[in-house]
Amino acid sequence: MTRAYNFSAGPAALPEAVLRQAQAELLEWNGVRASVMEVSHRGAAFEALAAEAERDLRKLLAVSDDYAVLFLQGGATQQFALLPMNLAAPGQAADHVVTGHWSAKAVAEAGSYVDARVAADAGIYTRIPDRPQWRLSADAAYVHICQNETIHGVEFQDAPRDLPAPLVSDFSSTLLSRPIDVSRYGLIYAGAQKNIGPAGLVVMIVRRDLLERAGQPRANILSYAQQAAQHSMLNTPATFSIYLARLVFAWLLEQGGLAAIGERNARKAGALYAAIDGSGGFYRNPVDPAVRSWMNVPFVIHDDALHARFLAEADAAGLMALKGHKAVGGLRASIYNAMPEAGVEALIGFMRDFQARNG
Amino acid sequence: MTRAYNFSAGPAALPEAVLRQAQAELLEWNGVRASVMEVSHRGAAFEALAAEAERDLRKLLAVSDDYAVLFLQGGATQQFALLPMNLAAPGQAADHVVTGHWSAKAVAEAGSYVDARVAADAGIYTRIPDRPQWRLSADAAYVHICQNETIHGVEFQDAPRDLPAPLVSDFSSTLLSRPIDVSRYGLIYAGAQKNIGPAGLVVMIVRRDLLERAGQPRANILSYAQQAAQHSMLNTPATFSIYLARLVFAWLLEQGGLAAIGERNARKAGALYAAIDGSGGFYRNPVDPAVRSWMNVPFVIHDDALHARFLAEADAAGLMALKGHKAVGGLRASIYNAMPEAGVEALIGFMRDFQARNG
Repeated sequence: MTRAYNFSAGPAALPEAVLRQAQAELLEWNGVRASVMEVSHRGAAFEALAAEAERDLRKLLAVSDDYAVLFLQGGATQQFALLPMNLAAPGQAADHVVTGHWSAKAVAEAGSYVDARVAADAGIYTRIPDRPQWRLSADAAYVHICQNETIHGVEFQDAPRDLPAPLVSDFSSTLLSRPIDVSRYGLIYAGAQKNIGPAGLVVMIVRRDLLERAGQPRANILSYAQQAAQHSMLNTPATFSIYLARLVFAWLLEQGGLAAIGERNARKAGALYAAIDGSGGFYRNPVDPAVRSWMNVPFVIHDDALHARFLAEADAAGLMALKGHKAVGGLRASIYNAMPEAGVEALIGFMRDFQARNG
Repeated sequence: MTRAYNFSAGPAALPEAVLRQAQAELLEWNGVRASVMEVSHRGAAFEALAAEAERDLRKLLAVSDDYAVLFLQGGATQQFALLPMNLAAPGQAADHVVTGHWSAKAVAEAGSYVDARVAADAGIYTRIPDRPQWRLSADAAYVHICQNETIHGVEFQDAPRDLPAPLVSDFSSTLLSRPIDVSRYGLIYAGAQKNIGPAGLVVMIVRRDLLERAGQPRANILSYAQQAAQHSMLNTPATFSIYLARLVFAWLLEQGGLAAIGERNARKAGALYAAIDGSGGFYRNPVDPAVRSWMNVPFVIHDDALHARFLAEADAAGLMALKGHKAVGGLRASIYNAMPEAGVEALIGFMRDFQARNG
């Protein structure tokens, strides 16, 4: 048994070096004579770890002191509900740009707390509506986008400009995949289980002035401002997940930070899309090339009957979890930071071979 | 370096056998050629694991089909907010019995969603108010208690009787420590980081008829009914935590189930309280003996100046995390399922020796 090249969309592959370190110290961590899972979040050892995690994340993304960094729980989906609760007055408008499954879900969940408006909807999720076509409200509390649609493979390549309200972006499947300009966002949030760590952890970067909004009646535990005031320890955080995220952040710094990672990811995505586009129609990715995701590459084979064979043979060749999401079918290669270039090359080689045998 | 006897109140010690298994298969789990952290929660392997976790928990606690079992996130504190949101109409009353820090916090968090009434308050948290003194509302949605107060060491030894509304109990630090009659509760919930697994996971056992209550306007992700309908996979659950919980459940079954564990825990607690009570006043636990916790034993030394020396010497002797919570000071020994009887005996031996040297 060996580890496969794992193309899972999430929970996704973690860097092997990170897993090996976690394995080595799983029973005795950092001289505390216990697992990192078994110590108080309020003890000196864990508090130092949490501070290091925040420090390294700030370093990776060049986050200024104008922003708070939070480590929360409940997944990005929970934030679909907590964002309006925290950032908007009851009945206030919040604008949403819909470019796929997740940004559509954000509208639905927000609707219990806010006038959740759709400023633009791509309709068929293969493109991003042009910025001038967005119908933005004058009175919206914020504008919500999903930076990268994990299922549809549509990614904002940059932050949209000229918005009348703070930009809130779901970065779940793309945070830490390349450098970004945090200052162009009001709030960035991401479920960890793609590029950061185990499922259950949410990383949030929020401009401090937004924490001063009254928001809506809510319990303290659902308040971002309270979490920021308590350094994400209003209650026991997901300590093991924060530990693993910290190892991932350190690994990213060792790799050269996000500039180096971004170049590598651009090469990986570029090679895979080139292989698809160069297959003479055998493979096809329907997304507008200008907004193709660097992280999630959905594609189909011209003959739907070949998908099952592709999946079975790829799996046997050590290329796992390539099945497309049921909403779109076909195939999907998620090529997060932990996927080495050799894994993408192996996939491309397999695709060529499969085409030669079935073309 | 070796593992210490870990008396942390939480995140707390896990069974060493569980950690060793997790360590062995951290990179390659169950033939999937990846870590359990790295596979989809909707894949066959993880779905089987989640089903086994639920099956074993039902077996341990003899949970009938009248109850749903949920694996949630956000800690027990988040449930302080979600319970009223799910179980009560806006403005409806919910009765609370306050016996310590956590049941008091539950009242405060519920207040945003419900008329959170205090039916009884122990005032000084060393006892449980007698049932006839509780001022229960005729129209309450539910009656909330904290089964075991982790900080104050006060534990309901059984479910209170003759309640006009369903009983909701925070079992965070006592679930799985002894057999209970689930049928006497409407809803049981527990943060995992005491007796179940890593921080971040919440186990909930809820009578299905309570899921049919309309509750209050809320996003789907905050709805227990929606989580039950989706088998706790409305979004990505805390997969690694569920994996570890499943290992803990299997370990408990191997130990002989909750009857055997309960006997062991009764012996551990009995021996420790006897040592405190038999110290001639050198050590003191202030709790009414009828409601002393089996899991968390707070105690003080007659001379406050000795606490720091006790902690330093105990730590050097391999007995860690005995500091009391800052709300009560002094010392606390948390003796959850993973603490072997030998650990309690070692603590008692150290206490006697310390007294002999400082008495």
